Amino acid sequence: MSDANKLIECVPNFSEGRDLEKIESIVRPFRGKEGVRLLDYQWDLDHNRMVVTAVGEPDPLRQVVIEAVAVAVDQIDMTRHQGQHPRMGAVDVIPFIPIRNVSMAEAVDFSRRVAGEIAERFDLPVFLYEVSASSPSRQNLAAVRKGQFEGMREKLKQPEWKPDFGPERIHPTAGVTAVGARMPLVAFNVNLGTDNLEIADQIALKVRHISGGLRYCKAIGVELKERSIVQISMNMTDYTKTALYRAFELVRIEARRYGVNVIGSEIVGLTPMEALIDAAVYYMGIENFSMDQVLEARLME
Amino acid sequence: MSDANKLIECVPNFSEGRDLEKIESIVRPFRGKEGVRLLDYQWDLDHNRMVVTAVGEPDPLRQVVIEAVAVAVDQIDMTRHQGQHPRMGAVDVIPFIPIRNVSMAEAVDFSRRVAGEIAERFDLPVFLYEVSASSPSRQNLAAVRKGQFEGMREKLKQPEWKPDFGPERIHPTAGVTAVGARMPLVAFNVNLGTDNLEIADQIALKVRHISGGLRYCKAIGVELKERSIVQISMNMTDYTKTALYRAFELVRIEARRYGVNVIGSEIVGLTPMEALIDAAVYYMGIENFSMDQVLEARLME
Repeated sequence: MSDANKLIECVPNFSEGRDLEKIESIVRPFRGKEGVRLLDYQWDLDHNRMVVTAVGEPDPLRQVVIEAVAVAVDQIDMTRHQGQHPRMGAVDVIPFIPIRNVSMAEAVDFSRRVAGEIAERFDLPVFLYEVSASSPSRQNLAAVRKGQFEGMREKLKQPEWKPDFGPERIHPTAGVTAVGARMPLVAFNVNLGTDNLEIADQIALKVRHISGGLRYCKAIGVELKERSIVQISMNMTDYTKTALYRAFELVRIEARRYGVNVIGSEIVGLTPMEALIDAAVYYMGIENFSMDQVLEARLME
Repeated sequence: MSDANKLIECVPNFSEGRDLEKIESIVRPFRGKEGVRLLDYQWDLDHNRMVVTAVGEPDPLRQVVIEAVAVAVDQIDMTRHQGQHPRMGAVDVIPFIPIRNVSMAEAVDFSRRVAGEIAERFDLPVFLYEVSASSPSRQNLAAVRKGQFEGMREKLKQPEWKPDFGPERIHPTAGVTAVGARMPLVAFNVNLGTDNLEIADQIALKVRHISGGLRYCKAIGVELKERSIVQISMNMTDYTKTALYRAFELVRIEARRYGVNVIGSEIVGLTPMEALIDAAVYYMGIENFSMDQVLEARLME
């Protein structure tokens, strides 16, 4: 398998969502590079944070990410950073997602290599997280990031929080970075025909993994005030194991208890085609269907 | 828009399904060409016919198709051809399907250009059909092909069957060819929980266009003897206008009249991802969904 057929997605989060000049200079390395495509970048003033979405062949992607980290480490000063979103570093987190002809094991290897390189080049402490984590306690980003930038100086002194790569102390202005491989995440929301947030909260409790629901589903109840409805806002963290239609039908089943109807749903941002095709195959009972029958899958081989 | 971003699918049908050496020599031009990908080729002994599936950028695809036609015209002698499938020429039909960054109007122009070139190079009468047809009476391939190879000599003498390109008489050994642009076709079958073929025939009548059903749906009842069931075997000729889920639900509704359940379905061969994603969007009521949200669609831009 040639490297040119391999594709990895990268969704790095940078702690800059206000200074447009800095935002553009961090994004610049992703533009016009052979073998890398910038799909999207969005920033948020309140969060003071930017999320970039790019895909690329492994080697060019690695080089582009390192270039962008160089810019962010140079331009972002975490000692002066404020924002609503939890954060621990100038380059807060770099997730890598296997897209095409790349196994999860390869994506993990790739993430370790990037982590090692940015630690060495920028004297930056790096934690491996998600599937790349070196211990179960480091899988969850929230656990790694707990204490945020301000608490990292002390946290890194604890032996159980020795970074996987780089120095055993924070970078004075760029803090700490997490790098890891994970499955594609689908943001899937189901809307209810009620404005009662408590019902949405109760249903979220039933469908999400942590409180007894589906293994690869995170969920919270959310109010959509302008529409006077509520929704179950879900992150599907592995649609190949916890199908979207299963979460959808489970929400419907739980909503029945309250005499509430599901009135629709939405997908926020990007989704792999398989997450939706899987639902079509379920609802129409398509027998022996293979993703090889999808023209676009064949074109991407 | 650069030509390298345009993709057209081609599914030529050749009147040779028995001689493996000839089959391979006809397929050979599709192999190893820059800008063209051979996706599939299947032949059938009873039909004595081969169907090739390839996609490519317009210019390389045109050249490869002409090369394959040259081989077929050289090697197939229709005066000695026998087979169950209706046929009128060595290269019986060449459908072109717009896949990416190609409008139907462009695909029609492309098909006319290919038709003109093969008519001139091989002294072959060519009819334009489907969307490319020069008159409504030539849209339907079955109408063009009526009389088959053996009847073409007389048919071409009629003024209303003057070929769109090439001589006004058949090619002595290669007969007549049809070329045209059409939408991607999805072969979609719905299985019923009964072995009663009459019920399948009745339902097919209700869902297919010709007898009062859905505009872009052809359907017949078929017996699956080894499973002791019947199915509605459908060709969805424009899934963007007649959605698969609509045909599926209509079959279910009609089956109810007979107390029969839909027990599953199948897709034969390739389908564009949109035909299935559309069904997922319907069944889960996904609001404001755009194909731009599909990662693979973005990767193919």
